[in-house]
Amino acid sequence: MQKTVIKNGLILKKTNDGYKTEKADITVVGNTISLETDTLIDNDTQIVDAKDKLIIPGLINLHTHFYMTAMRNFADDLAFDDWLFGKIMPAEDKLSDEFAYYSCLLGAMEMISTGTTCFMDMHMFKGQSCKATEESGMRAFIGRCVVGDDLYGERFKEALEEMEEYESNRIKFVLSPHAIYSCSTKLLQQVRDEAISRNMLKQIHASESANEIKKSIKVFGKRPIEYLADMGFLDDKTLLAHCVRVNDGEMDIIKAKGSSVVTNPASNMKLGNGFAPVPEMLSKGINVCLGTDSAASNNTLNMFREMGIFSLIHKGTHEDSTLLPSDTVIDTATINPARAVGMEGKLGEIRDGAIADLVLLDLNKISLFPHNNIVSSLSNSANGSEVCSVMVDGKWVMRNNEFLTIDKEKVLYEVDRLANKFLR
Amino acid sequence: MQKTVIKNGLILKKTNDGYKTEKADITVVGNTISLETDTLIDNDTQIVDAKDKLIIPGLINLHTHFYMTAMRNFADDLAFDDWLFGKIMPAEDKLSDEFAYYSCLLGAMEMISTGTTCFMDMHMFKGQSCKATEESGMRAFIGRCVVGDDLYGERFKEALEEMEEYESNRIKFVLSPHAIYSCSTKLLQQVRDEAISRNMLKQIHASESANEIKKSIKVFGKRPIEYLADMGFLDDKTLLAHCVRVNDGEMDIIKAKGSSVVTNPASNMKLGNGFAPVPEMLSKGINVCLGTDSAASNNTLNMFREMGIFSLIHKGTHEDSTLLPSDTVIDTATINPARAVGMEGKLGEIRDGAIADLVLLDLNKISLFPHNNIVSSLSNSANGSEVCSVMVDGKWVMRNNEFLTIDKEKVLYEVDRLANKFLR
Repeated sequence: MQKTVIKNGLILKKTNDGYKTEKADITVVGNTISLETDTLIDNDTQIVDAKDKLIIPGLINLHTHFYMTAMRNFADDLAFDDWLFGKIMPAEDKLSDEFAYYSCLLGAMEMISTGTTCFMDMHMFKGQSCKATEESGMRAFIGRCVVGDDLYGERFKEALEEMEEYESNRIKFVLSPHAIYSCSTKLLQQVRDEAISRNMLKQIHASESANEIKKSIKVFGKRPIEYLADMGFLDDKTLLAHCVRVNDGEMDIIKAKGSSVVTNPASNMKLGNGFAPVPEMLSKGINVCLGTDSAASNNTLNMFREMGIFSLIHKGTHEDSTLLPSDTVIDTATINPARAVGMEGKLGEIRDGAIADLVLLDLNKISLFPHNNIVSSLSNSANGSEVCSVMVDGKWVMRNNEFLTIDKEKVLYEVDRLANKFLR
Repeated sequence: MQKTVIKNGLILKKTNDGYKTEKADITVVGNTISLETDTLIDNDTQIVDAKDKLIIPGLINLHTHFYMTAMRNFADDLAFDDWLFGKIMPAEDKLSDEFAYYSCLLGAMEMISTGTTCFMDMHMFKGQSCKATEESGMRAFIGRCVVGDDLYGERFKEALEEMEEYESNRIKFVLSPHAIYSCSTKLLQQVRDEAISRNMLKQIHASESANEIKKSIKVFGKRPIEYLADMGFLDDKTLLAHCVRVNDGEMDIIKAKGSSVVTNPASNMKLGNGFAPVPEMLSKGINVCLGTDSAASNNTLNMFREMGIFSLIHKGTHEDSTLLPSDTVIDTATINPARAVGMEGKLGEIRDGAIADLVLLDLNKISLFPHNNIVSSLSNSANGSEVCSVMVDGKWVMRNNEFLTIDKEKVLYEVDRLANKFLR
């Protein structure tokens, strides 16, 4: 089995006393981390010198729409309705599979080069996210977005075919109804039943905007989280993207059901939806995870940028500079999402037996310098450009800022051509 | 006179219809931009190919404390009093001139490499900001921070000596009383008189925290801006850093006096002070400029990160996705600060006769790709790592990501040594 020894690096470790950095060698056998020091090195062992490098677990971006990456800066600074109905939806109606595919590869390059190794996707183009993920070497939880009155239509058929074709060690599938305002109660109940019988994760956009709450109360006589809880949709395999407008009672429901929340701070601000009550959710013990949402509503897939913004805004809204300290922020991009997808101890941590999704950062980058507090610099100073090498599932996908799985020149060429064709 | 022709680039131009990009060659003669197309090229002319590069005016960071850059991540996620009195001030008491000097050079590298060519500084170590600025090739407005009961003490003497020694084409001086709670009324009146007689700019921290307002009302019987206005401190050569807590009447005063506001969004959130009413200030016609504050309260001097955060947070607080569009955000880092320092038309714009402070960005960086809207990408997507070459006052200070004026290895070595000595 392929063996790699990463020597002389500083590794980020979660301890009972919070995150610490320590000098340690990491051995990767197959796709698995070993921190044993008496590694047997043979002729086939790859030795990598990580002097002046910080090694962190690959970041996990738990909410995005991968195929929209090439829509970056296509619709900015607009009112929500102008953004969605005037620009995004009319454009989406025209997009091709090819656009989606190259857009996903652009997103893969962006995520890899900024230290993200794993993401959760909600898409509209059969097979394209899967194909791009498989080729890029990334890890993903992928779902075909479903809407309407009945789950068992064309889209669900496509979702099943996708699963059949692409499910692997790195690619897992997630049932993905769009939202309570775009899916009927019947469809959501069908998703609930399928998730149980197939033992699958499910994700849904929930409680994103003021309009959604208003409509939910008008139509269902209750707030979105209450509605979802009452139909039995919420459990510990449910991921709720956004939750900007949840009240105290809804937070208690989420906690009681063991569902996870994916907060997307940049997207929520960009679209004028405000700030999720993250400090309150955390103090109730809800498993809060971080996501970027798509590049059309962010406008990057850079989790370091997202962590930086996330660490600041709740200090600002609550006028409390002690909120969202670096340990908490790092958790939301590593251990918490691992827990949300049922892979605690396997993803999001550098420990014996965990999967080798690893990111190396150059400690001599000015933004991380000097090293007064390296842990803190991850959420407070880093911008993603410090990332130099990335391993997913025991295989390098970027080394010294060169992509090993993706032809960057070709992807930029094709994305430019397709954006010209469809968006301009 | 040295002549440089930058060919084939895309330049950012302010038009009556907002920012646009256009293909154009830029000729730099001495320190001045010419956009004439019939440039005479002789043997001494330097020709630079800017294909696939975006050329923007150098960004202006209008509030920082340069000497604190090496205190990055030294005091994060703390309550304000623990931050200031527990960590920052005790450390500052011990710091040496040498620490301040290398810390400034670290800051210069950070600013240059992220596209900032000019900044306004408030410092505590005689000569060190000046020396580092002069050597780095950057442009700066520098002020020795003064506090206490009487302007005419040791610090003001030092400030005058500094001016005598360092004032130049690139380095100008600013009278810099710290704040209304740390300076007596008499001292502020003396600053007012000196500023008028010397025809100088003046800067002050104002209306940063809730405590400051409370104290101002208790001690002076009025709010900070009212107090400053009543003593004649405010005019069009006054820069007010922060203004987080200004009310409607205070904004009207600032507008009437023609003073400029420097907003520091990351710093205000990090220290739990909240959000300045920027949309309100802009709608009143106040000249709002952007700053990072120091790396100890941000924790970067990266103006692209600051623009990104700035463009998002007011959309979030006001739940209005049309606020702070890219044109407005770019203005606050270019034209508005140029106006604040009395150099409108000379700084912050690429136009005939303006000073050649120029930044080249690599348009093939993933974060700017595809080019659906390049202007928008500057405030919504860029993270600063797209910057590849920087010219200040007609001279290159960075080319293809290599510093030409600063020995990076030496500065990192010395900063590490000095941070170890003083901060750990």
